Amino acid sequence: MAKAWILFLISLFCWMTADASLCSTKGLPLVRNINNLPQSNFGREGLSHITVTGAVLHGMKEIEVWLQTFAPGTRTPIHRHSCEEVFIVLKGSGTLYLASSPGLKHPGTPHEYAISQNSTFHIPINDAHQIWNTGINEDLQMLVVISRPPIKVFIYDDWSMPHTAAKLKFPYYWDKECYHVSKDEL
Amino acid sequence: MAKAWILFLISLFCWMTADASLCSTKGLPLVRNINNLPQSNFGREGLSHITVTGAVLHGMKEIEVWLQTFAPGTRTPIHRHSCEEVFIVLKGSGTLYLASSPGLKHPGTPHEYAISQNSTFHIPINDAHQIWNTGINEDLQMLVVISRPPIKVFIYDDWSMPHTAAKLKFPYYWDKECYHVSKDEL
Repeated sequence: MAKAWILFLISLFCWMTADASLCSTKGLPLVRNINNLPQSNFGREGLSHITVTGAVLHGMKEIEVWLQTFAPGTRTPIHRHSCEEVFIVLKGSGTLYLASSPGLKHPGTPHEYAISQNSTFHIPINDAHQIWNTGINEDLQMLVVISRPPIKVFIYDDWSMPHTAAKLKFPYYWDKECYHVSKDEL
Repeated sequence: MAKAWILFLISLFCWMTADASLCSTKGLPLVRNINNLPQSNFGREGLSHITVTGAVLHGMKEIEVWLQTFAPGTRTPIHRHSCEEVFIVLKGSGTLYLASSPGLKHPGTPHEYAISQNSTFHIPINDAHQIWNTGINEDLQMLVVISRPPIKVFIYDDWSMPHTAAKLKFPYYWDKECYHVSKDEL
């Protein structure tokens, strides 16, 4: 019985410590090693997301930086947003699909751009886009920079879905498990 | 004489092409290889600055991304700014000096933080800071992300210089040779 209690207390301590390191905006070291930052797939198989510097974790108001890794064959949803976004490919290769179709009621057939290690590109505001790891063996790893967190994302089922039917997700926090609005703020 | 003309025309063509690739916001490929981007030391010995994605070159309004390399022994000036800034160390090692001294009339003695490959950190708004490549043999290479370009920078001669005496540089464009304000805009 005492052993069970000790195990329970150890688990509780680990959980509390993990929560603090994941979610606290205070007490985090100023200089951090990217390799030691917490990562999650947020329920998406083949994804690893790390918030390098973020709104919830570090109190950023104007920029966020993410490190995202996609296993072969995995991809982002087709989506658009009104923030600025810059990508830098650190490893692997893939395809950027980008639909710049002002005037159309849906994204339409996207342009395809090959991306690989050391590629950089930015997404024009409100253009629907998707990134695929089209490689067979290698992970696609990218640094992603976005402006004005938390971002407001519109998600499409396919390229012919009307803009007006795209599903809105807002606020779109990767670290939403850390985002607690107290009752006083409601 | 004809040979001189041909040489002149070739030089003119090269100059125009270089200017277009450095400064044009149009006609740049969407996906670029970081290794092929133009770099300059902007008159600072031991520095290599590359604007990966910028206000002047790519029409960014909310974020800029730079790739900066400091030779051993070289450093940034002591400076502060009201934009957000995130660093990711890609290679080498060095020291971050950071003075968080609210209430003081000058930055004061800075804290020292060791930085090395895979370190990441952000600079609290308006805190005076400086980064040195304190290594002996290796370059210090960092990705730098800033918000709200063009930034307004205040530069200090030393840590005891009053905030009010810091020299203002605005707009602070690395690519200012590309920044032509037409007379109509004045």
